[in-house]
Amino acid sequence: MAEPGIFEIIYSTRAMRRLKSDPIPEEVLKKIIDAGIRAPSGGNAQEWAFMLIQDPDLKRFIRDYYWNTWQQVRAQGSFSGELPPPQQRMMNAVADLAANMDEVPAILLACVRKEYAPIAAMKNQRGSNLAVYGTIFPAVQNILLACRALGVGATLTTIHSFFEEALKQKFGIPETMEVAALIPMGYPQGKFGPVSRRPVEEVIHWDRWGNQKS
Amino acid sequence: MAEPGIFEIIYSTRAMRRLKSDPIPEEVLKKIIDAGIRAPSGGNAQEWAFMLIQDPDLKRFIRDYYWNTWQQVRAQGSFSGELPPPQQRMMNAVADLAANMDEVPAILLACVRKEYAPIAAMKNQRGSNLAVYGTIFPAVQNILLACRALGVGATLTTIHSFFEEALKQKFGIPETMEVAALIPMGYPQGKFGPVSRRPVEEVIHWDRWGNQKS
Repeated sequence: MAEPGIFEIIYSTRAMRRLKSDPIPEEVLKKIIDAGIRAPSGGNAQEWAFMLIQDPDLKRFIRDYYWNTWQQVRAQGSFSGELPPPQQRMMNAVADLAANMDEVPAILLACVRKEYAPIAAMKNQRGSNLAVYGTIFPAVQNILLACRALGVGATLTTIHSFFEEALKQKFGIPETMEVAALIPMGYPQGKFGPVSRRPVEEVIHWDRWGNQKS
Repeated sequence: MAEPGIFEIIYSTRAMRRLKSDPIPEEVLKKIIDAGIRAPSGGNAQEWAFMLIQDPDLKRFIRDYYWNTWQQVRAQGSFSGELPPPQQRMMNAVADLAANMDEVPAILLACVRKEYAPIAAMKNQRGSNLAVYGTIFPAVQNILLACRALGVGATLTTIHSFFEEALKQKFGIPETMEVAALIPMGYPQGKFGPVSRRPVEEVIHWDRWGNQKS
Protein backbone atom coordinates (compact mmCIF):
# COMPACT_ATOMS: atom_id res chain seq x y z
CA MET A 1 0.00 0.00 0.00
CA ALA A 2 1.32 3.45 -0.89
CA GLU A 3 2.00 5.66 2.10
CA PRO A 4 -0.62 8.32 2.78
CA GLY A 5 -0.07 11.76 1.28
CA ILE A 6 1.45 14.56 3.30
CA PHE A 7 -1.44 17.01 2.97
CA GLU A 8 -4.05 14.30 3.54
CA ILE A 9 -2.31 13.57 6.86
CA ILE A 10 -1.77 17.21 7.85
CA TYR A 11 -5.44 18.04 7.18
CA SER A 12 -6.78 15.09 9.18
CA THR A 13 -4.53 15.03 12.24
CA ARG A 14 -6.71 16.10 15.12
CA ALA A 15 -6.44 15.56 18.87
CA MET A 16 -7.65 12.02 19.57
CA ARG A 17 -8.63 11.66 23.23
CA ARG A 18 -10.81 8.53 23.29
CA LEU A 19 -8.38 5.67 22.89
CA LYS A 20 -8.52 1.88 23.08
CA SER A 21 -6.25 0.04 25.50
CA ASP A 22 -4.89 -2.33 22.80
CA PRO A 23 -1.08 -2.24 22.82
CA ILE A 24 0.90 -0.43 20.13
CA PRO A 25 3.61 -2.71 18.66
CA GLU A 26 7.15 -1.71 19.55
CA GLU A 27 8.09 -1.32 15.87
CA VAL A 28 5.26 1.17 15.43
CA LEU A 29 6.40 3.17 18.47
CA LYS A 30 9.95 3.25 17.14
CA LYS A 31 8.80 4.38 13.70
CA ILE A 32 6.82 7.20 15.33
CA ILE A 33 9.83 8.44 17.33
CA ASP A 34 12.09 8.00 14.31
CA ALA A 35 9.83 10.45 12.47
CA GLY A 36 10.10 12.83 15.43
CA ILE A 37 13.88 13.03 15.30
CA ARG A 38 13.87 14.06 11.62
CA ALA A 39 12.72 17.48 12.83
CA PRO A 40 15.19 20.38 13.12
CA SER A 41 16.81 21.21 16.45
CA GLY A 42 18.86 24.13 17.75
CA GLY A 43 22.29 23.86 16.11
CA ASN A 44 21.22 20.34 15.04
CA ALA A 45 22.36 19.29 18.54
CA GLN A 46 19.38 16.90 18.92
CA GLU A 47 19.21 17.56 22.66
CA TRP A 48 15.99 15.62 23.10
CA ALA A 49 14.82 12.37 24.68
CA PHE A 50 11.59 10.43 24.36
CA MET A 51 10.31 8.38 27.27
CA LEU A 52 7.68 5.76 26.41
CA ILE A 53 5.70 4.53 29.40
CA GLN A 54 3.75 1.29 29.10
CA ASP A 55 4.08 -0.19 32.61
CA PRO A 56 0.62 -0.26 34.31
CA ASP A 57 1.84 0.98 37.71
CA LEU A 58 3.74 3.85 36.11
CA LYS A 59 0.73 4.81 34.02
CA ARG A 60 -1.40 4.86 37.19
CA PHE A 61 1.16 7.13 38.83
CA ILE A 62 0.78 9.58 35.95
CA ARG A 63 -2.99 9.21 35.87
CA ASP A 64 -3.35 10.18 39.53
CA TYR A 65 -1.25 13.34 39.19
CA TYR A 66 -2.79 14.23 35.86
CA TRP A 67 -6.37 13.79 37.09
CA ASN A 68 -5.76 15.87 40.24
CA THR A 69 -4.04 18.59 38.23
CA TRP A 70 -6.77 18.62 35.63
CA GLN A 71 -9.42 19.11 38.33
CA GLN A 72 -7.46 22.06 39.75
CA VAL A 73 -6.92 23.61 36.33
CA ARG A 74 -10.60 23.28 35.51
CA ALA A 75 -11.67 24.77 38.84
CA GLN A 76 -9.18 27.66 38.97
CA GLY A 77 -8.53 28.47 35.34
CA SER A 78 -10.76 30.36 33.00
CA PHE A 79 -11.98 27.05 31.56
CA SER A 80 -14.89 27.06 34.01
CA GLY A 81 -18.39 28.38 33.47
CA GLU A 82 -20.80 27.79 30.61
CA LEU A 83 -19.21 26.77 27.35
CA PRO A 84 -20.55 26.53 23.78
CA PRO A 85 -21.39 22.90 22.90
CA PRO A 86 -18.23 22.15 20.82
CA GLN A 87 -15.94 23.39 23.62
CA GLN A 88 -18.03 21.52 26.19
CA ARG A 89 -17.61 18.31 24.19
CA MET A 90 -13.87 18.91 24.04
CA MET A 91 -13.72 19.54 27.78
CA ASN A 92 -15.65 16.32 28.42
CA ALA A 93 -13.20 14.39 26.27
CA VAL A 94 -10.26 16.00 28.09
CA ALA A 95 -11.79 15.03 31.45
CA ASP A 96 -12.40 11.45 30.29
CA LEU A 97 -8.84 11.18 29.05
CA ALA A 98 -7.50 12.53 32.37
CA ALA A 99 -9.64 10.08 34.35
CA ASN A 100 -8.58 7.12 32.20
CA MET A 101 -4.98 8.04 31.44
CA ASP A 102 -3.80 4.70 32.87
CA GLU A 103 -5.89 2.82 30.28
CA VAL A 104 -4.02 4.11 27.24
CA PRO A 105 -1.34 1.71 26.00
CA ALA A 106 1.51 4.23 25.94
CA ILE A 107 2.29 7.66 27.33
CA LEU A 108 5.10 9.63 25.73
CA LEU A 109 7.11 12.23 27.64
CA ALA A 110 8.93 14.46 25.14
CA CYS A 111 12.01 15.89 26.90
CA VAL A 112 14.51 18.55 25.89
CA ARG A 113 17.67 20.00 27.40
CA LYS A 114 16.60 23.05 29.41
CA GLU A 115 19.15 25.53 28.15
CA TYR A 116 20.53 26.00 24.70
CA ALA A 117 24.15 26.59 25.65
CA PRO A 118 25.32 28.94 22.85
CA ILE A 119 22.42 31.31 23.52
CA ALA A 120 22.37 30.88 27.31
CA ALA A 121 25.97 32.10 27.32
CA MET A 122 24.65 35.35 25.84
CA LYS A 123 22.07 35.69 28.65
CA ASN A 124 19.12 36.15 26.34
CA GLN A 125 16.31 34.25 28.06
CA ARG A 126 13.92 34.56 25.15
CA GLY A 127 16.52 33.34 22.70
CA SER A 128 17.17 30.35 24.90
CA ASN A 129 13.44 29.63 25.25
CA LEU A 130 13.00 29.76 21.48
CA ALA A 131 15.97 27.47 20.89
CA VAL A 132 14.73 25.01 23.54
CA TYR A 133 11.04 24.85 22.63
CA GLY A 134 11.86 25.30 18.95
CA THR A 135 13.87 22.10 19.32
CA ILE A 136 11.22 19.89 20.90
CA PHE A 137 7.85 20.99 19.50
CA PRO A 138 8.71 20.48 15.80
CA ALA A 139 9.69 16.91 16.77
CA VAL A 140 6.40 16.60 18.66
CA GLN A 141 4.46 17.64 15.57
CA ASN A 142 6.30 15.10 13.41
CA ILE A 143 5.31 12.52 16.06
CA LEU A 144 1.64 13.53 15.94
CA LEU A 145 1.67 13.28 12.13
CA ALA A 146 3.44 9.91 12.18
CA CYS A 147 0.90 8.63 14.72
CA ARG A 148 -1.93 9.71 12.41
CA ALA A 149 -0.25 8.09 9.40
CA LEU A 150 0.07 4.81 11.31
CA GLY A 151 -3.49 4.91 12.64
CA VAL A 152 -2.49 5.81 16.20
CA GLY A 153 -4.47 8.49 18.05
CA ALA A 154 -2.58 11.04 20.12
CA THR A 155 -2.95 14.46 21.67
CA LEU A 156 -0.45 17.11 22.75
CA THR A 157 -0.88 18.06 26.41
CA THR A 158 1.17 20.35 28.66
CA ILE A 159 -0.51 20.51 32.08
CA HIS A 160 2.07 18.04 33.41
CA SER A 161 4.11 21.23 33.97
CA PHE A 162 2.24 21.47 37.30
CA PHE A 163 3.71 18.14 38.46
CA GLU A 164 6.91 17.97 36.46
CA GLU A 165 9.16 17.57 39.53
CA ALA A 166 7.24 14.47 40.63
CA LEU A 167 7.53 13.05 37.10
CA LYS A 168 11.25 13.68 36.92
CA GLN A 169 11.86 12.08 40.30
CA LYS A 170 9.70 9.03 39.56
CA PHE A 171 11.23 8.36 36.16
CA GLY A 172 14.81 9.38 36.91
CA ILE A 173 14.81 12.22 34.37
CA PRO A 174 17.95 14.37 34.84
CA GLU A 175 17.68 17.88 36.26
CA THR A 176 19.14 19.26 33.01
CA MET A 177 16.10 18.08 31.03
CA GLU A 178 12.63 19.55 30.79
CA VAL A 179 9.50 17.53 30.08
CA ALA A 180 7.92 19.67 27.36
CA ALA A 181 4.94 17.53 26.38
CA LEU A 182 2.93 14.57 27.64
CA ILE A 183 1.31 12.66 24.81
CA PRO A 184 -1.12 9.79 25.47
CA MET A 185 -1.19 7.39 22.53
CA GLY A 186 -3.50 4.56 21.48
CA TYR A 187 -5.63 3.26 18.66
CA PRO A 188 -8.65 5.55 18.47
CA GLN A 189 -12.24 4.71 19.29
CA GLY A 190 -13.43 7.40 16.90
CA LYS A 191 -12.34 8.43 13.44
CA PHE A 192 -9.63 10.78 12.31
CA GLY A 193 -11.07 13.68 10.45
CA PRO A 194 -10.80 17.26 9.33
CA VAL A 195 -9.91 19.91 11.90
CA SER A 196 -11.92 23.12 12.10
CA ARG A 197 -9.87 26.26 11.77
CA ARG A 198 -10.42 29.92 11.04
CA PRO A 199 -9.84 30.77 7.34
CA VAL A 200 -6.18 31.12 6.42
CA GLU A 201 -6.80 34.65 5.10
CA GLU A 202 -7.43 35.80 8.68
CA VAL A 203 -4.00 34.76 9.93
CA ILE A 204 -1.76 35.91 7.06
CA HIS A 205 -0.42 39.47 7.22
CA TRP A 206 1.26 40.60 4.00
CA ASP A 207 4.36 42.77 4.59
CA ARG A 208 2.70 44.62 7.49
CA TRP A 209 0.49 43.74 10.45
CA GLY A 210 -3.17 44.06 9.47
CA ASN A 211 -2.55 43.99 5.72
CA GLN A 212 -4.80 41.06 4.83
CA LYS A 213 -6.41 39.80 1.64
CA SER A 214 -9.80 38.13 1.61
CA MET B 1 0.26 13.58 -9.77
CA ALA B 2 -0.25 11.88 -6.43
CA GLU B 3 0.83 13.95 -3.47
CA PRO B 4 4.13 12.91 -1.89
CA GLY B 5 4.02 10.46 1.01
CA ILE B 6 4.14 11.64 4.59
CA PHE B 7 7.24 9.66 5.60
CA GLU B 8 9.07 10.49 2.38
CA ILE B 9 8.55 14.17 3.22
CA ILE B 10 9.41 13.86 6.91
CA TYR B 11 12.64 11.99 6.12
CA SER B 12 13.80 14.49 3.49
CA THR B 13 12.94 17.85 5.06
CA ARG B 14 16.22 19.45 5.93
CA ALA B 15 17.24 23.06 6.52
CA MET B 16 17.63 24.67 3.08
CA ARG B 17 19.78 27.80 3.33
CA ARG B 18 20.89 28.42 -0.26
CA LEU B 19 17.83 29.75 -2.01
CA LYS B 20 17.02 31.27 -5.40
CA SER B 21 15.42 34.70 -5.58
CA ASP B 22 12.57 33.52 -7.86
CA PRO B 23 9.22 34.52 -6.37
CA ILE B 24 6.94 31.99 -4.70
CA PRO B 25 3.38 32.23 -6.10
CA GLU B 26 0.82 33.59 -3.66
CA GLU B 27 -1.28 30.41 -3.90
CA VAL B 28 1.74 28.36 -2.85
CA LEU B 29 2.39 30.64 0.13
CA LYS B 30 -1.26 30.37 1.19
CA LYS B 31 -1.21 26.58 0.90
CA ILE B 32 1.90 26.48 3.09
CA ILE B 33 0.31 28.60 5.84
CA ASP B 34 -2.95 26.67 5.51
CA ALA B 35 -0.98 23.53 6.37
CA GLY B 36 0.51 25.37 9.35
CA ILE B 37 -2.83 26.18 10.92
CA ARG B 38 -3.91 22.52 10.88
CA ALA B 39 -1.53 22.04 13.82
CA PRO B 40 -2.86 21.88 17.38
CA SER B 41 -2.84 24.99 19.59
CA GLY B 42 -3.43 25.62 23.29
CA GLY B 43 -7.15 25.17 23.90
CA ASN B 44 -7.54 25.22 20.10
CA ALA B 45 -7.52 29.02 20.48
CA GLN B 46 -5.34 29.45 17.33
CA GLU B 47 -3.63 32.50 18.82
CA TRP B 48 -1.13 32.74 15.99
CA ALA B 49 -0.36 35.04 13.08
CA PHE B 50 1.89 34.61 10.05
CA MET B 51 3.56 37.61 8.50
CA LEU B 52 4.88 37.11 4.97
CA ILE B 53 7.44 39.70 3.89
CA GLN B 54 8.19 40.11 0.19
CA ASP B 55 8.82 43.87 -0.10
CA PRO B 56 12.51 44.50 -1.03
CA ASP B 57 13.01 47.39 1.41
CA LEU B 58 11.50 45.44 4.26
CA LYS B 59 13.65 42.42 3.45
CA ARG B 60 16.73 44.66 3.52
CA PHE B 61 15.66 45.97 6.93
CA ILE B 62 15.57 42.40 8.22
CA ARG B 63 18.80 41.48 6.47
CA ASP B 64 20.75 44.29 8.15
CA TYR B 65 19.58 43.39 11.66
CA TYR B 66 19.97 39.68 11.02
CA TRP B 67 23.48 39.99 9.62
CA ASN B 68 24.66 42.20 12.48
CA THR B 69 23.11 39.87 15.05
CA TRP B 70 24.58 36.81 13.40
CA GLN B 71 28.06 38.33 13.53
CA GLN B 72 27.64 39.05 17.26
CA VAL B 73 26.29 35.57 17.99
CA ARG B 74 29.17 33.99 16.10
CA ALA B 75 31.76 36.14 17.89
CA GLN B 76 30.36 35.85 21.42
CA GLY B 77 28.63 32.49 21.46
CA SER B 78 30.24 29.11 21.73
CA PHE B 79 29.93 28.72 17.97
CA SER B 80 33.41 30.12 17.53
CA GLY B 81 36.68 28.23 17.29
CA GLU B 82 37.61 25.26 15.13
CA LEU B 83 34.69 23.15 13.98
CA PRO B 84 34.49 19.70 12.36
CA PRO B 85 33.95 20.02 8.58
CA PRO B 86 30.19 19.26 8.54
CA GLN B 87 29.50 21.91 11.21
CA GLN B 88 31.82 24.33 9.42
CA ARG B 89 29.86 23.82 6.19
CA MET B 90 26.65 24.47 8.09
CA MET B 91 28.07 27.63 9.64
CA ASN B 92 29.18 28.85 6.21
CA ALA B 93 25.68 28.30 4.84
CA VAL B 94 24.18 30.11 7.84
CA ALA B 95 26.54 33.05 7.25
CA ASP B 96 25.69 33.16 3.53
CA LEU B 97 21.99 33.11 4.30
CA ALA B 98 22.40 35.93 6.84
CA ALA B 99 24.39 38.03 4.37
CA ASN B 100 21.85 37.47 1.59
CA MET B 101 18.62 37.41 3.55
CA ASP B 102 17.21 40.21 1.37
CA GLU B 103 17.62 38.04 -1.75
CA VAL B 104 15.16 35.34 -0.68
CA PRO B 105 11.69 35.84 -2.12
CA ALA B 106 9.79 35.61 1.17
CA ILE B 107 10.53 35.80 4.88
CA LEU B 108 7.96 34.40 7.28
CA LEU B 109 7.57 35.70 10.82
CA ALA B 110 5.61 33.14 12.86
CA CYS B 111 3.91 34.99 15.72
CA VAL B 112 2.00 33.78 18.77
CA ARG B 113 0.13 35.43 21.64
CA LYS B 114 2.63 35.81 24.47
CA GLU B 115 0.54 34.45 27.32
CA TYR B 116 -1.83 31.56 27.34
CA ALA B 117 -4.54 33.15 29.46
CA PRO B 118 -6.01 30.10 31.27
CA ILE B 119 -2.56 29.07 32.49
CA ALA B 120 -1.24 32.58 33.05
CA ALA B 121 -4.11 33.08 35.51
CA MET B 122 -2.59 30.23 37.54
CA LYS B 123 0.81 31.93 37.64
CA ASN B 124 2.74 28.97 36.31
CA GLN B 125 5.33 30.45 34.00
CA ARG B 126 6.50 27.11 32.66
CA GLY B 127 2.95 26.06 31.93
CA SER B 128 2.40 29.29 30.06
CA ASN B 129 5.65 28.87 28.11
CA LEU B 130 4.67 25.34 27.09
CA ALA B 131 1.20 26.44 26.00
CA VAL B 132 2.64 29.38 24.01
CA TYR B 133 5.54 27.65 22.28
CA GLY B 134 3.57 24.40 22.04
CA THR B 135 1.08 26.45 20.03
CA ILE B 136 3.42 27.96 17.47
CA PHE B 137 6.19 25.42 16.84
CA PRO B 138 3.93 22.54 15.76
CA ALA B 139 2.47 24.96 13.18
CA VAL B 140 6.02 25.90 12.17
CA GLN B 141 6.86 22.24 11.59
CA ASN B 142 3.74 21.74 9.44
CA ILE B 143 4.92 24.78 7.46
CA LEU B 144 8.41 23.32 6.96
CA LEU B 145 6.92 20.03 5.77
CA ALA B 146 4.47 21.78 3.43
CA CYS B 147 7.33 23.84 2.00
CA ARG B 148 9.26 20.64 1.32
CA ALA B 149 6.22 18.99 -0.27
CA LEU B 150 5.77 21.97 -2.59
CA GLY B 151 9.46 22.18 -3.48
CA VAL B 152 10.15 25.29 -1.39
CA GLY B 153 13.30 25.44 0.71
CA ALA B 154 13.07 26.85 4.24
CA THR B 155 14.88 26.86 7.54
CA LEU B 156 13.76 27.54 11.10
CA THR B 157 15.76 30.35 12.73
CA THR B 158 15.38 32.05 16.11
CA ILE B 159 18.18 34.60 16.50
CA HIS B 160 15.74 37.40 15.60
CA SER B 161 14.98 37.25 19.35
CA PHE B 162 17.93 39.63 19.72
CA PHE B 163 16.19 42.29 17.61
CA GLU B 164 12.54 41.42 18.13
CA GLU B 165 11.58 44.88 19.39
CA ALA B 166 12.88 46.49 16.19
CA LEU B 167 10.93 43.94 14.14
CA LYS B 168 7.73 44.53 16.04
CA GLN B 169 8.01 48.29 15.70
CA LYS B 170 8.85 48.19 11.97
CA PHE B 171 6.04 45.79 11.08
CA GLY B 172 3.40 47.03 13.53
CA ILE B 173 3.22 43.73 15.40
CA PRO B 174 1.16 44.20 18.61
CA GLU B 175 2.86 44.11 21.99
CA THR B 176 0.73 41.09 22.95
CA MET B 177 2.37 38.95 20.26
CA GLU B 178 5.77 37.27 20.23
CA VAL B 179 7.76 36.56 17.07
CA ALA B 180 8.71 32.93 17.69
CA ALA B 181 10.44 32.06 14.42
CA LEU B 182 11.90 33.74 11.35
CA ILE B 183 11.78 31.47 8.33
CA PRO B 184 13.43 32.47 5.02
CA MET B 185 11.76 30.71 2.09
CA GLY B 186 12.69 30.19 -1.53
CA TYR B 187 13.16 27.60 -4.21
CA PRO B 188 16.39 25.78 -3.34
CA GLN B 189 19.67 25.89 -5.22
CA GLY B 190 20.54 22.45 -3.86
CA LYS B 191 18.57 19.26 -3.42
CA PHE B 192 16.34 18.11 -0.61
CA GLY B 193 17.69 15.01 0.97
CA PRO B 194 18.01 12.78 3.99
CA VAL B 195 18.87 14.35 7.33
CA SER B 196 21.58 12.82 9.48
CA ARG B 197 20.48 11.91 12.96
CA ARG B 198 21.66 9.77 15.84
CA PRO B 199 19.98 6.32 15.86
CA VAL B 200 16.48 6.34 17.31
CA GLU B 201 17.47 3.70 19.88
CA GLU B 202 19.67 6.29 21.59
CA VAL B 203 16.82 8.71 22.27
CA ILE B 204 14.06 6.32 23.40
CA HIS B 205 13.87 5.52 27.10
CA TRP B 206 11.46 2.68 27.92
CA ASP B 207 9.50 3.25 31.17
CA ARG B 208 12.54 4.70 32.95
CA TRP B 209 15.39 7.07 32.08
CA GLY B 210 18.38 5.13 30.76
CA ASN B 211 16.40 1.96 29.98
CA GLN B 212 17.31 1.64 26.31
CA LYS B 213 17.19 -1.16 23.78
CA SER B 214 19.72 -1.48 21.01
